[in-house]
Amino acid sequence: MKLYDSPTAPSPRRVRIFLAEKGVTIPTVQVDLRAGEQFTPSFRALNPQCTVPVLELDSGAAVTDIIAICRYIEELHPEPVLMGRTPEQRALIDCWVRRIEWDGISAIAEAFRNSTPGLEQRALPGPLPLAQIPALAERGRLRAAHYFEWLDAQLADHAFVCGPEFTVADISALVTVDFARRAKLDPPDHLRHLKRWYGEVASRPSAKA
Amino acid sequence: MKLYDSPTAPSPRRVRIFLAEKGVTIPTVQVDLRAGEQFTPSFRALNPQCTVPVLELDSGAAVTDIIAICRYIEELHPEPVLMGRTPEQRALIDCWVRRIEWDGISAIAEAFRNSTPGLEQRALPGPLPLAQIPALAERGRLRAAHYFEWLDAQLADHAFVCGPEFTVADISALVTVDFARRAKLDPPDHLRHLKRWYGEVASRPSAKA
Repeated sequence: MKLYDSPTAPSPRRVRIFLAEKGVTIPTVQVDLRAGEQFTPSFRALNPQCTVPVLELDSGAAVTDIIAICRYIEELHPEPVLMGRTPEQRALIDCWVRRIEWDGISAIAEAFRNSTPGLEQRALPGPLPLAQIPALAERGRLRAAHYFEWLDAQLADHAFVCGPEFTVADISALVTVDFARRAKLDPPDHLRHLKRWYGEVASRPSAKA
Repeated sequence: MKLYDSPTAPSPRRVRIFLAEKGVTIPTVQVDLRAGEQFTPSFRALNPQCTVPVLELDSGAAVTDIIAICRYIEELHPEPVLMGRTPEQRALIDCWVRRIEWDGISAIAEAFRNSTPGLEQRALPGPLPLAQIPALAERGRLRAAHYFEWLDAQLADHAFVCGPEFTVADISALVTVDFARRAKLDPPDHLRHLKRWYGEVASRPSAKA
């Protein structure tokens, strides 16, 4: 197996933290996104979507989705369980992760990619050049603010996003907070449950990954 | 278990087709989206995201994501296998489904929701009113066109989206074609591999679901 990674993007960090929690090490290839290495013919042959992370399997197959990579690793290395112990837990964790991706990550990306100089034709990841839409940056900011309010409410009576145990949903949500900071969309200070939880998950050794 | 469904939306149809392929019947509650039943207090208590489908489990937990519902059903009723027989197959099917969702369903929804009269404040599903952005409708049309070209290329040398077997990826892709038609974004006639595949999957009995 080989993991195509990049230190500058939030997506591969979700996989790195997951691997760190599992105690699993995979040989890694760094892809320089700022130099456009994701658009080279050799990378496109691996992943036509031109995104990282990619997990290249020994068969040569490329797993190009973050959660698909995590689930594959979970099947190979079940402990510690990060994606649920029962069909019901797995289904509910999957729902939270999806919500974090749609309402959190994609909202923040909407704000960031549609307003950041240097990303003028990069409003979405992928091979298609897409112009920034200023109204979309504004919509992303609004959605991100609502997302953090929801996350705070969710954490009011749960230790972690999905309940009493740390799961892949916490990894995904941790990355949204750090991504939001980079996009100058820091969650407001009055969201104290979010703050308490963030202090805990960000101080786990895996968060350095 | 109870499935909250609606005949007018593409999302719950993905679950209905999946259940039909499995031969599984679940008691169903119809949610009238046009009358705004997804915004009533009782529905919000079940799913604060105000979307269908929702699978309410016997424990009272609500599974609100399409693929999480499908995976839960697959765990309870493994045959016929629709989500992969091995960790590698499961990971790759997951990637295709994600791609169909991002590049297909979300692109078509972008075009449809940002241009359809009556959806002026409904540019995204969910509880937050969001104004239509005309530039986003245009972007969605462009992305949908690229998606269908990709799908056609993928089907050039595969019987089904993920290879020789019908999977949940075919269900998701079938729904994108029908959703695109409704949005007047029909795949062009020259995409003959797509046309061949569509003829096959749309004539399965499950497609009537």
